[in-house]
Amino acid sequence: MGTHKDRKMTADLLISGGTLLTLNENNDIFEVGGVAIAGNRIVAVDETSLLAENVDAKQDLDASGCLVMPGLINLHTHAAMTCFRGLADDLPLQEWLHQYIFPAEASFVGEETVYWSTLLATVEMIRSGTTTFCDGYFYEDAAARAVSASGMRAVLAQGVIDFPAPDVPDPRVNVKAAEAFLLRWQDKSSRITPSIFCHSTYTCSPETLLRAKESCSELGVLFQIHVAENQAELEETQDRFGRRPLEHLQALGLLDARTLCHHAVRVNDGEIETLATSGAGVSHNPESNMKLASGVAPLPKMLAAGVIVGLGTDGCASNNNLDMFQEMDTAAKLHKVHQGDPALSSAVEVVAMATQGGLAALGMADELGCLEPGRKADLIVIDLEQPHLTPMYEPCSHLVYAARGADVRDVIIDGRLVMRERQVLSVSEDEVMAKMREIGDAIRSKQ
Amino acid sequence: MGTHKDRKMTADLLISGGTLLTLNENNDIFEVGGVAIAGNRIVAVDETSLLAENVDAKQDLDASGCLVMPGLINLHTHAAMTCFRGLADDLPLQEWLHQYIFPAEASFVGEETVYWSTLLATVEMIRSGTTTFCDGYFYEDAAARAVSASGMRAVLAQGVIDFPAPDVPDPRVNVKAAEAFLLRWQDKSSRITPSIFCHSTYTCSPETLLRAKESCSELGVLFQIHVAENQAELEETQDRFGRRPLEHLQALGLLDARTLCHHAVRVNDGEIETLATSGAGVSHNPESNMKLASGVAPLPKMLAAGVIVGLGTDGCASNNNLDMFQEMDTAAKLHKVHQGDPALSSAVEVVAMATQGGLAALGMADELGCLEPGRKADLIVIDLEQPHLTPMYEPCSHLVYAARGADVRDVIIDGRLVMRERQVLSVSEDEVMAKMREIGDAIRSKQ
Repeated sequence: MGTHKDRKMTADLLISGGTLLTLNENNDIFEVGGVAIAGNRIVAVDETSLLAENVDAKQDLDASGCLVMPGLINLHTHAAMTCFRGLADDLPLQEWLHQYIFPAEASFVGEETVYWSTLLATVEMIRSGTTTFCDGYFYEDAAARAVSASGMRAVLAQGVIDFPAPDVPDPRVNVKAAEAFLLRWQDKSSRITPSIFCHSTYTCSPETLLRAKESCSELGVLFQIHVAENQAELEETQDRFGRRPLEHLQALGLLDARTLCHHAVRVNDGEIETLATSGAGVSHNPESNMKLASGVAPLPKMLAAGVIVGLGTDGCASNNNLDMFQEMDTAAKLHKVHQGDPALSSAVEVVAMATQGGLAALGMADELGCLEPGRKADLIVIDLEQPHLTPMYEPCSHLVYAARGADVRDVIIDGRLVMRERQVLSVSEDEVMAKMREIGDAIRSKQ
Repeated sequence: MGTHKDRKMTADLLISGGTLLTLNENNDIFEVGGVAIAGNRIVAVDETSLLAENVDAKQDLDASGCLVMPGLINLHTHAAMTCFRGLADDLPLQEWLHQYIFPAEASFVGEETVYWSTLLATVEMIRSGTTTFCDGYFYEDAAARAVSASGMRAVLAQGVIDFPAPDVPDPRVNVKAAEAFLLRWQDKSSRITPSIFCHSTYTCSPETLLRAKESCSELGVLFQIHVAENQAELEETQDRFGRRPLEHLQALGLLDARTLCHHAVRVNDGEIETLATSGAGVSHNPESNMKLASGVAPLPKMLAAGVIVGLGTDGCASNNNLDMFQEMDTAAKLHKVHQGDPALSSAVEVVAMATQGGLAALGMADELGCLEPGRKADLIVIDLEQPHLTPMYEPCSHLVYAARGADVRDVIIDGRLVMRERQVLSVSEDEVMAKMREIGDAIRSKQ
């Protein structure tokens, strides 16, 4: 499988000795396997013994006692909101938004805050096994600089809203500003893909949505929007447009394979069919939906209908963490109790959603998501030699129901080791935390 | 607050420099506080600067950058079931129980398995900040030996069921065997309190329940039972006795302050009132209830009615972890979405449930549960200097929504340091894991 018998293959990094969960088409598992990486690509996947014979690697990473698998994909977050984590919890939704989050954003969201808060988010995500995330916020150039520094892969979207925004005080130029962001980051980095994020159907006019989608389509990038997150949004959209949020998007012609709908909690059977037919992606964010009491998305129905669904944490103001392992656990459990069926939302389905589902929604499914030669090298090494993971009967069961972000030992993104033995190599964690304490002090002093 | 000004107080251990979450009556928080411990008791709690002047300690523990708080109480588990973690998931309930769990228990549950599996569970619990747990299983003497070795505090209950059990093949002597267990462990250890666990109203006859409760009452120990966990139990109990499970216990006179009801998912308003009036405790186990699709317990109503409720993980076959931090997170989020109210089940309420609620249900609320002089010294030190906990605005919010078991750095139980810098000092983790791999191999080979 990918190794040549005649002469030795050269590689930059050889990860060997661990259990490989390839997540390839056959769901191959190698009990003692190895992955060879050259540049930013996987060049060989095989039994450790065969790779040892056939690969000359510049660097070796011993993964004995570990599980090696593709990195996790966080399909929805607002990374910079780490600065507001825990600022206001357990409040009625309108009070939370209008008395805490919006004023805090108006006062504190600037280029510096977004840079450091996003950098902190990348460190947290790397430390919990996420290799790619999909973001939407303001000052997204600053987010892009942070992602660039972190070594992560990301789809980064400039936020668009028909109100004065921290970085775009005049909403008449909001789409133009987002377009400029697309042009600045288009083809600039192999790890960063720009996108536009229209906040919602009730905060963006049909004209804004159409213009933003048109800009995205011209450049072939992803158009993102919060859709049908909660009952208030549903009612407001119905009142204003006579249509439910998803119907509204469909009527405007905005649903296609390059559109990503976040949440999709309040969608009926017809709308699920619309999503499936259109090829639009959906991010499922169960912990945020629970914490904000938004509702339970019809995940089993969406999966059964063939909707492309990935998993997300949402931002830190409404979760309050970016740990995809915990999100997987919740995604597996919530639908069981909601539907009264313990066989729903299985560990295997949830792992697929947290990897390939997210990549499919981002249009990256051919490049990433499994351990096989030719794929980009984004993978994680999980330490299995821990009490809570001993013994192991089924890898996916352990990943979803027992493992935690803190069990991730090493992270490789785009062929580069960005965390080793739980030390993030790309970013100074001490510096980020020191800056975040300053930002936190400033925010606290204004409460 | 507890320090003497005239001469220096002597202590065995002085923990200082951290933020203290005392959870005392006034909810005092010391920004830079300290706790002095002598023997197995807290002898002083104060500002670090005052303690440094007034206490002579044999050992110092620097908790700078950490949060120091009372240890967590896992009110419901079957600790030995760690050996079955991940063996069978995502299955219909009857298939899970009858094709996997019961046969596996019949074949593999013996003294050795219970000893090592319980020891593994204690290590996992210590590593995630639990200092006391409440257990029920078979071969509970072996569990007691494991707890003894681990340094943990526990209420340990011999299981009673009207069927042949692994350790009591003749069900006619099941209560007698449990009584003998009570007598063997009564007053034997300051950390171990014996108890009897009758499996349920549908697997124990009224006579068995009455005799078991009588044995408990004679010795003043806790009587435990699964109650109203799911719809099937409700219906079976109604069919056989013409009463719902909780009504059945009430009619038999089994509900009082020394009875602990596990789950209480299917309880109506009248039954909630009965629970409150009787003083019986309830363990709330949201993750197990979700995974097995048992239902959502009416937690907000129980708390409003004054029912004594603590938090539990349940056993590893139905969760599949013993991490109380994750359980707290789920407990806070589940009821918000279930009731459509984001203000329900607040972080502060959940932390209280995971500490003082559990202790009240165990009859230990006067001895433990807050940092104040005279209390037994069970406390945990959480490392706050981590990306996902920086900055911190509200300690309880961080504990519930952002912190994880792996953030616990040190654990003190009964005055003894059982984990330091994430190294468990009381048990050889390598030895336990090696034994558990053998046990796992044996179980796997029979599947």
